[in-house]
This record gives sequence, structure tokens and C-alpha cells, in this order.
Amino acid sequence: MKNRFLLACIATLGVSLSAAAEDGYDLWLRYPLVDSATYGELETHARELVAPGTTPTLEVARAELLRGLSGLTGKPVARVDAASGAGALYLGTPKESPAIASLGLSLQRAGEEGYLIRSVRVAGQPATVIAANTDAGVLYGVFHFLRLAQTRQPLAALDILSAPRTRIRVLDHWDNLDRHVERGYAGESIWDWHKLPDWLDPRYIDYARAMASIGLNGTVLTNVNANATSLTPAYLDKAAALAGVFRPYGVRVYLTARFSAPIELGGLKTADPLDPGVRAWWKAKVDEVYRHIPDFGGFLVKANSEGQPGPQDYHRTHADGANMLAEALAPHGGIVMWRAFVYASSATEDRAKQAYAEFAPLDGKFADNVLVQVKNGPIDFQPREPFSPLFGAMPKTPLMMEFQVTKEYLGFSTHLVYLGALYEEVLRADTFVKGKGSTVARVIDGELHGYKLTGMAGVANIGSDRNWSGSHFDQANWYAFGRLAWDPFASSQAIAEDWVRMTFSNDPRFVKPVVSMMLDSREAVVDYMTPLGLAHLMGTGHHYGPAPWVSDLARPEWNPAYYHRADADGIGFERGPPGDGKGGSNAVAQYAPKVAAQFADPKKTPENLLLWFHHLSWGHKMASGRTLWDELVLRYARGAAEVGEMRRTWEAQRGRVDAERFAQVAAYLAIQEKEAQWWRDACIAYFQSLSKRPLPAGVPPPAHPLEYYQSQKFPYAPGRG
Amino acid sequence: MKNRFLLACIATLGVSLSAAAEDGYDLWLRYPLVDSATYGELETHARELVAPGTTPTLEVARAELLRGLSGLTGKPVARVDAASGAGALYLGTPKESPAIASLGLSLQRAGEEGYLIRSVRVAGQPATVIAANTDAGVLYGVFHFLRLAQTRQPLAALDILSAPRTRIRVLDHWDNLDRHVERGYAGESIWDWHKLPDWLDPRYIDYARAMASIGLNGTVLTNVNANATSLTPAYLDKAAALAGVFRPYGVRVYLTARFSAPIELGGLKTADPLDPGVRAWWKAKVDEVYRHIPDFGGFLVKANSEGQPGPQDYHRTHADGANMLAEALAPHGGIVMWRAFVYASSATEDRAKQAYAEFAPLDGKFADNVLVQVKNGPIDFQPREPFSPLFGAMPKTPLMMEFQVTKEYLGFSTHLVYLGALYEEVLRADTFVKGKGSTVARVIDGELHGYKLTGMAGVANIGSDRNWSGSHFDQANWYAFGRLAWDPFASSQAIAEDWVRMTFSNDPRFVKPVVSMMLDSREAVVDYMTPLGLAHLMGTGHHYGPAPWVSDLARPEWNPAYYHRADADGIGFERGPPGDGKGGSNAVAQYAPKVAAQFADPKKTPENLLLWFHHLSWGHKMASGRTLWDELVLRYARGAAEVGEMRRTWEAQRGRVDAERFAQVAAYLAIQEKEAQWWRDACIAYFQSLSKRPLPAGVPPPAHPLEYYQSQKFPYAPGRG
Repeated sequence: MKNRFLLACIATLGVSLSAAAEDGYDLWLRYPLVDSATYGELETHARELVAPGTTPTLEVARAELLRGLSGLTGKPVARVDAASGAGALYLGTPKESPAIASLGLSLQRAGEEGYLIRSVRVAGQPATVIAANTDAGVLYGVFHFLRLAQTRQPLAALDILSAPRTRIRVLDHWDNLDRHVERGYAGESIWDWHKLPDWLDPRYIDYARAMASIGLNGTVLTNVNANATSLTPAYLDKAAALAGVFRPYGVRVYLTARFSAPIELGGLKTADPLDPGVRAWWKAKVDEVYRHIPDFGGFLVKANSEGQPGPQDYHRTHADGANMLAEALAPHGGIVMWRAFVYASSATEDRAKQAYAEFAPLDGKFADNVLVQVKNGPIDFQPREPFSPLFGAMPKTPLMMEFQVTKEYLGFSTHLVYLGALYEEVLRADTFVKGKGSTVARVIDGELHGYKLTGMAGVANIGSDRNWSGSHFDQANWYAFGRLAWDPFASSQAIAEDWVRMTFSNDPRFVKPVVSMMLDSREAVVDYMTPLGLAHLMGTGHHYGPAPWVSDLARPEWNPAYYHRADADGIGFERGPPGDGKGGSNAVAQYAPKVAAQFADPKKTPENLLLWFHHLSWGHKMASGRTLWDELVLRYARGAAEVGEMRRTWEAQRGRVDAERFAQVAAYLAIQEKEAQWWRDACIAYFQSLSKRPLPAGVPPPAHPLEYYQSQKFPYAPGRG
Repeated sequence: MKNRFLLACIATLGVSLSAAAEDGYDLWLRYPLVDSATYGELETHARELVAPGTTPTLEVARAELLRGLSGLTGKPVARVDAASGAGALYLGTPKESPAIASLGLSLQRAGEEGYLIRSVRVAGQPATVIAANTDAGVLYGVFHFLRLAQTRQPLAALDILSAPRTRIRVLDHWDNLDRHVERGYAGESIWDWHKLPDWLDPRYIDYARAMASIGLNGTVLTNVNANATSLTPAYLDKAAALAGVFRPYGVRVYLTARFSAPIELGGLKTADPLDPGVRAWWKAKVDEVYRHIPDFGGFLVKANSEGQPGPQDYHRTHADGANMLAEALAPHGGIVMWRAFVYASSATEDRAKQAYAEFAPLDGKFADNVLVQVKNGPIDFQPREPFSPLFGAMPKTPLMMEFQVTKEYLGFSTHLVYLGALYEEVLRADTFVKGKGSTVARVIDGELHGYKLTGMAGVANIGSDRNWSGSHFDQANWYAFGRLAWDPFASSQAIAEDWVRMTFSNDPRFVKPVVSMMLDSREAVVDYMTPLGLAHLMGTGHHYGPAPWVSDLARPEWNPAYYHRADADGIGFERGPPGDGKGGSNAVAQYAPKVAAQFADPKKTPENLLLWFHHLSWGHKMASGRTLWDELVLRYARGAAEVGEMRRTWEAQRGRVDAERFAQVAAYLAIQEKEAQWWRDACIAYFQSLSKRPLPAGVPPPAHPLEYYQSQKFPYAPGRG
């Protein structure tokens, strides 16, 4: 295999090794020449461009459009002051564009960031407009229009109105000032702090283009495990330089605030949020931040979680802490994103209950410019979790979603897992807090509870790797996150299809199987890592590979054994009501009664969450008629087999994509298959050591004895915290 | 400035932001179309290619040649079995190529790796041959031939015989298994250990091409501050995968050996090199390494230096340690490169004397397959040092040169400093050990002492940054190192000119001033950092920026104050003979008598090394007639001013190179100028606080008081150890 790869590389030296080789840098922002015989829409509907206006955002919108149109059509598209005939494309706001103003379009529903793309007549000539109330809306409209062409959609009779359903749409970069990215699997941070503010890597511009193209409007530059140094003048200068690059693209800069910064930077004796000196320090610090970055977005804060300082150090609440920062930010229009990912430093309580336990009682106690940022599940970005019970439980407090785009628990960058499927599952989950249809998406978009602030955050998977995300297919997760932040009701399948078409090919022989493979990939990883509602079986610290046997770490909830609770009799974490006599943690009670009742009953609990909520005997009968043991083993086997299917699907695409990306995806799928088998074998070996049951027919025994898997060590696995 | 840059980027969006933008990835391996009216040599002399042979090395040689010829001429160049007329290019060894064999060329002087490029007649037709005794020689010849074309040399009447003057020509990568590069300023390690051996980044091939193109034949993959894990089976698999990629390019893989590995990996109680169990462990380990990598090159070892374990832990000598490893490697043809960079953990002796003191007495005690690797100067890769007194002092022990290509003490990647000038200065230095003309180059190439093994090592400046070296001009240092390793007598100016022509442009309006700027750049950095023989004034730990005031570190020789010894009366480190009554360390006595006499006398010591060897009063009269104080200040001022000149030189090149590289170089030069002024001001402020003397006329006072410079902290400066 390796020799074959090498020879293939050598044979294609002329192409594959030049700087122009296809390396994925272009993401989904590709405008290669289209055969106009196949797709002539642009020649008809975007013959020339009428786009007045000179703001930086209009400049970049126009530049992107011209770049896209000229790339796709293979000829320069003229920018004109007035259309010369049919087929002009009008771009702008009514304020900047007299032609658009003359159409009297109703742009109210477009709001601050939305846009209208419509086929119209201007001065009697058929034309297309991309119109918005703001320059940012125009930019988003441009990317939508280009997407239509990139995915070969008809451009006649367009009438698209699109506006984001959430207001704060941010990537959270867990990037340290030394460029190490916590849970990063794509190289080091793209922020070259040492050379900032003097050297502005052109990559920053491409980052901003990518962000704007999927509707993201903010970036948190620094790790939630925050470093007060990022708030010193030298680093504010650096952040300001990035903000200057991003500004034309509508992307605002946010920073993480280390709660103890008043002590570390200010020399104060306390960081008590009710201390007047502390409040004054933050106020002055925030004023200073805004002197550097006039449109600074605000702070993201991780407090009293995993050792981070916070208000509880002073016997204050999360609300006290958040509100202190909010007060300092409010005069400038800034916000606080306060994370609900907390677990006590000496917990006896079920970890899955802690975020709810700490935050639900604080509902209504947060200032108006605070969002509480809630991870999608109650624990921590597992391949599958039920939705967090906080969604629906804080009607008076804007909750924003925190998804993880980087694949901390999902095989890092070498496993192909399309997270759009995971995001959609969470967003469509029904909290039932206001009856059927009270989906998480309706919580997040503010509609269910009338939130004034709304938002969605994704923990970035971006690094210095040439292809941004470490793997070509991980670009799809960045893409899907952005699209779902804009519209939490969007279909992950439709998004995958757009992404495949824009990123790889419009060839239907390619699109269909590849989209299908992406959609199946999430279930595959659940199966080969944590089927049937299992969770947190990954290796200690780095979360690479299986380690279900680990049970000797200092804190109980650091141990995989804490989560699966397998023994000779059975497996699973009982979270049913204590009245059941099974010692349940009653985590189910944190959900609305209808959901709670479902999760409380093993017979009603969806099988894919069964062991999350219930400890059951190995002999427990499953819907299939098989025992739980057999079912568990078969799921592991199915997951590993599915990756084999994915490899074959990809192999069939040889020649339909460039050789470079084909080769990397193929190599990564080979790694994924090897590691899926490793997961399968290690977990089966371990659980069998407890269940003492035979493997169901047709499942091969693990390749090695359990001790082999237990002896594997990965001290240099990437992305460590 | 920043806005202008941003607008320029936006204005050129179409070009500058595409994946095909000029980002420096191609290094000097560029074959852009040449106007045949200007340079028609290839059409005449490389019309078609006769190149039989199917070995992997011949395959890559042929592929590179075809890629180069077709790029430069803009048309595919045919590979034929027999020439169709005049102007064929013959490639190969006499063994593989009957046509070359038929010429009866004398290839004896080409040796194992050299080549002959000659204009000949084959079957009556004018032709050119690239002939060698080995495939590797053919590959090197191909790169030479391409260089002739890239630099627009005539291709008629060629008669070039070139063979390397050193045998081991390696890059030392100080790369850790977590991808952090110690003293790396170009991103993280290009070795993606986590994904190896399964994923072979195509970049590995381009690395090997670049190495071969400048004649380098080895790479030490791992940091000299070694990690025993790199010798475990999993990591040997990974190293073997890299070796497989590099093999066709003649690049061998070496590893660093942690001396305590028998304890850490083998569970032994000792790593005593005379212990039979330890010797057996290393023998078995080396056998295992060769099972993974049949052509493994050998070990590089840093022992008993800066806290690393070594034979002295067991009261054995460096020779004992090296010979133990050498014994294990010898049956496989492997070598040991044993570093002479040592300084005792509790030194009272002048640090500059320690390497000599420890190693010179061991001359003749090392096994035949050991090279002692000596840094160019007695201390540590300073902007200027005298040559190490070990050169010439170990006639019975092969000494190899260790240069630093990465700019640990020379402003990191943002300072333009052409190190070819530094290397050449060292190589041309005369040790006088066998009379006049006993240059360091003649030590290194083995000629002076009849060494059987010879070598040169460069500490790599390569990382994951797209342009490899962190800056475009730092590529020149990699290039120059390779060329000088091949031929230590080569001219750094000629090398710079080749590099400029290959990397940027053959336009004489560009070549001349840019080469001149490169040659001047080294003296500039000496002047603005450490003029007149000063050394080691850099910031603690990271070596970023000036910190001459530091004097409170635990070990005396960690402190800048240890090196400059400035006080109210004067400055400099007295290394003259103790008989002078000046408390000299007598380091001069480590040199041959003639050199020692020169360095012992301040009046004969070159001014550029004056304060290295002598402590002199501030009022000491210099050759210029000025006082030492005035001269020192003026050197600082001159260095900073020179960077201003460099900026202007570069600015005048606008339009003669692509916009992307132009912009980055310009931005970096702006950083360099700012930092050169910082160096000037901080050092002047500090030394003036001691000398209490007024600044010479025309030199502006420092921009800030001394306390300002002393308060600067850079906790996240890159490349830390």
C-alpha cells in the first residue's frame, strides 16, 4: 500500500507536487470553469454587474462575486454603472444602489443580516437583484448566489429571502497564545500571535471569507481555558489587527476572559465579582479593549469548571460573575457568553446532572446582555448524548448552543464523521416544555421563550494545516455548523449535498454516494465507539482510542468505568427515578415530564440512548429479540464494518476527484477502518472480560488479548488540554 | 500601513487568495516558462532525453528533469530510446546507459555521489551527458543541470565535474514527538508523527526533493534533547515510513539516541556504557532499528550537556559512550555523531573553554565510525563567534561541523540574515595548526588530517509553515547550508546569487541589489545585536530581543552579564593569558600558537572579535581613533540604520517579484527594523547606565528609559526549548 502510494506520487510528480496541487486550501469556495453547454445560467442571469458603493464590505462582496463569476464562466464579468441589456445582476442596499431603491422591495424580513435574491425587471429588462438592508446582508447574499451557481441551480425566477435565525454565530477557538490548540487536530493555531500585529497573514482574509460564506459573524480568538495575558495591551493590539482584517467580512472578534485577571493583571487581592475594586477594574479593562477594538463582540467565559477560577471562589453565583462583566460591556454593546459546562471539583452527584443543577435555578438572574452557552449534551461532546436538559429549562435566560466542530471524542481528524447529522439530531430533539414540537432549535432561535439574544457557538476545528481542518471531510463540519447556526431548521442532508457539490463535484455519480456515506458516518462512529447510549470510553487525557477499562483516575467522573458501570451482571448508568430501587441518579427528572417519563422507562427509552439512562443486565432482551450483550457486540461489529463500506464507497470515486484529495481521504479512511476495528476489538475484549459471555455468531474474536489493548500508550497524541 | 496592506490584498483578491497564490512553497525548485528568445539554450541542448533505467532514484531524477525542462520550455520534452538528432540530453550511469558507457568517460573523480556534466558527441551528434557512477550522482547532476538553466547559464561546451567534499551532509531537526520544534520559527514539525506511518504527507516528497537538490544526504528526524520513545517499535515504524519516502532521493534517516534509553525502555538499572547488559541492550536495539530501516544512518547524541544523561553519569568518557553505540552500529554500516556541545553542570571555568577541555584530550579514542560534531563557535550559535578551537585540535578524530540554520540568536524568522556569510567566514578561518592555510574547511573536508569520515550538520529551520522556513529569505540559509556542505570552499556570494535567481528572478536589476543586501545583512545583525565581539545578550530562555542586564539566573553562564562583563570601567570578556595580570581565562591558549598570539593581544585581535577576547576600558582607543564606548554605540546605530537600507533596497524591487512574497518580505523587514531599533536602544540604554558616558554626536538617545526595556516580557515567544 505504502509503496503503491509512493509510486503514484512519483508518477504524477508534475502535478501533485507543485504549489498549485489540490490541497484543500480553497474549502468550498471554488469557482472552477463550468461548461456553459451544461450550465449556462450565469451567461443569462449574471452577464454584468451593477454594484455601486464603496464601503469595505461592499468592496469584498463585489470582489468575491467577480471572482466567482469570472472563475465559473471563464471570462471577466464587467462591472457597469448601468445595465446594457437583459441579464444584469444588481447588488447592494437601497441606500447605496438607486436601481435597487427604485424597485421598492420589501426588505423588512431580511432584517439586519438577511438578504433577498430575486428575479426582477429593471427598466424593462430582466435582471436579478441581491438586495439587503445592510452591507453584511449583501455579502451573505453574494455567497448564497454563488452557491446557487456552484451547485448548478437554475437562476431564473429566483425569490429567496433568507435571514439568520440566530444573532450570535461564532466559532470558539480553543487556541492558546503559544499556538497550541486544545483539542486541535489540524496543526497549530492559525493566529500567529508572535508576529501580530505587524504581519497579517493573507490566510486571515481567507478565514474571514469562509466564515462569511456560511453566515458566521463572530470568532472567539482565545481558549476558554483562558490566559489573562490576552487582555494585556500588547495582545489587544494583536487582536485588534485581526479584527481589522475580519471587519469587512462582518466577523466580530471576541475574547475569553480569565476570571482572575483582576488579580493576575491588576494586582488586586480578589476577583470577587461584588467587590467594587474588581468591578472598576473590569470596567476600565473593557473600556481599554474597546479603545483597541471599537466593535469588540464581548467575552466568552469558562468559570468554576475544570479548575478555572470563577465567582464561586468567592461564594458568588455564576450570575454574579456574568453580570459583573455584562455591566462593563453593556455601554459598548458587548455581550457575555457564559458557559454552563461546569462540574464541581468534588462531585458526588451524577456528572450529567450538574450543569442543570447549577444553572436552572439561576434562570432570570442574568443581565440582558448575557447568554448562557450550553453544550449540546449533558456531559461532553460524545458521539451521542441526549440533548441537555437545560434546553427548555431556562425560559428567562437566553441559552446559546455550543457544538463541538473539532472531533475531540470522535476519532480526531482521521475519522470521517459528518457532524451535521449529530447537530440536526440535537436541534430537532423535542424538549416538550411547551408541548409537542418544543424543539431545541426553537429554544435556540429564541422563538419558544422569546429570547432577545440568540446564538450558536461551534468549537473550531481549524488549524494551520493546509486544508484548515486536518482532513478534507472535516471541512464539512465547519460548513454545516455555519449553515445550521444561520438556520437551525435546515436539513443536514441538504447541507451535505451543497458542501459536496461545492467542494468536490456536481457529478451525480459522486454526489449521491458520498452524501450518503457522510450521513451514515455518524452512526458508524457511535457504533464502533459508544453504541447503545454508552459514553466517555476514550483514552485518558487525549481521548484517543478506547480505554473502557480505566477506573483508577483521581476523580470518579474522569474514569470510563464511571460512565459505563459494567460488571459481571450488566452495563449502563442508571439515571431513572430513585423510586425504582435501582439506585438511579434521577437525571431523567431534569427533563420535561413527558420526556422524563420516556427516558425513565427502559422499554420506552430509545435504544440508541438506552445505556445512558439505564443499567441493564447482559441478558436484557432488546427490540431485536437479542440479548443486550449480543446487541452490544453486534453494534461494535456493525460500526467497524460500516467503515469498510465507507472505504469501498470512496474507492469507487477514484477519478471523479483530483488525485491528491482522493489519496488523502483514502488514506484516512484506511486509518479509520484500522482504528474502528481497534475500538471494536478492545471494547469487546474488555466487556467480555466482565460479561463472560460468548460472542454472537459471525463476530470474530478480538485480534489481541485484552492486555494488549490495555498496554497501548499514546503520550504524544495531538490536541491535549 | 496595515490598512494599505489590507486594501492591497482586497484589490488583488482574484490572485492573491487563491490556492495557487505565490506562497514560497516551491522554494528554489521553480521552473517557470522562459522566453526562448532570451534564453534558448534548452531548446538547443536539451531537446530530448535519453534516460534508461528503472531504479527509484533514476525515476525521480528523470521525473525532476522532465518537470524542469517542460516547465522552463513550456513544452513536453520527449523521453526517447535513441536520439533523433543533435541536442539530446543523456542521463545515467555507464551501467544503465549504453550510450554513456560507450563514451568511456572517466568518472573516477566523481566518486560515490558526484557527477559529470559534459558536452559531447554521441554517434556524431552534439549532445550533453549527465553521468555518474551511482544513481544518486545522477540525481545530483540533474539538479545541477537544472540550476544552470534556472540561472540562465550557457549550456554549450559544458565540462563540470562535481563531487561532494564531505560524506555526511545532514539536517538536524530539533523536532519533538509532539511536533514542537525547539528553536523552530516556522510552525510545528513537518513530521506528523501521530498519523505516521499510515499517512504520508506529499510534503515529505518535496522535502526530499529540496534536500537532494542541494546535495544533502541525511536527516536527523528527532531532537538532540532526545526522547527514548523515538526508539520504540511504533516510532521506528513511523521513521521507517519516512525513510521509505526519502530513499529514492538519497536521503538517509538518522535518529537521536537518548543515552538513558536502556533504563527508560529496557528497564535496566544503569546506562553505563561499559556495562555488558547495557551494551547488549543497545546492540539488540540497533539490530531492531535496522530491521525497520535497512539503510538507517546512525545516531546523533547530545550527552552530558544541559541536563541530558550521558556516560559521565557513570564516570565514563564521551569516547566510552560514543564507542558503545558505534560498536552496535558498525556491523550495519551506521555511524555516531557525538556532539561536542557540552558544558558542565557546575562550571567555574570559562564556558568558551569547556568543549575543548573535554574533547581535545579524547583525540584518537573514538571508534572509526564516530564523528564528533562541533558547533562553529566555542559558545552557541551567536551572530559572530571566533571559530571553535576544537577545529584543528583533534587530528585523529573526524570532526564534523554543526551550523545552525534556524536563527535562534539571530532574530528568528522575521529578521533577514543571510547565514551563508557566517558559514563562509567560519569555514575560511585559518586554524594555522599546520601552518598558514589550515582552514576550518580543510579540517571539515578531511584533507588536513586525513579523516576517513567527514560531515557537516545544519540545525534545520524547517517547519509546517507554508514557505517551509518561516520567511522567504530563510530558505536561502537552508540552501546555502546544503551547498556549503557539498563544497565548504564555495563562495557564499555565488550561492546567494544562484538562490536569488532560482527563487525570485534573473532580472539583473533585482539580482545585484538583493544579493548585496543579503551579504550585508549578517554584519547588520551583528551590529545591532552584539557588535565588536559581544555575545549572548539575548532574552532569557527564548533568546528573543535584548536583555544584556540579566544577571540573576541560577547559573553564571546563563546570564548575559557573564558574557559582556560590563561595569563602570569597561566591557568585554578577558580571555587572554593569565600572565597579563588581567585575570584572563586563557581561552586563547586553546588555539594554535600563531592564532593564540593574535587573539591574546587586543591590538592584533580583529575588532569584530575584540570584546570576545578582551575586557577593555570604555575609553580604549579603537582603530578609528574613537573610544570603545563611542565605537560600540556607533555600531549599534549602524546596524539599525543598515536595516533601514535593506528596507529601501527591497522597496525598490516592488513589481519585480510577485506581490505576495514582496509583501511578506516587506512586512518582515519592517518588523526587523523596529526590532533592530529596539536592540540598539535597549543596549545603549543599558550600557550607558554603566559607562555614564554621553552618546557620540548624531546618535539619538533611546526612545524609552532603560526600565521600559527591562520590563518587556515575552512568555509566548516561539521555539522555546
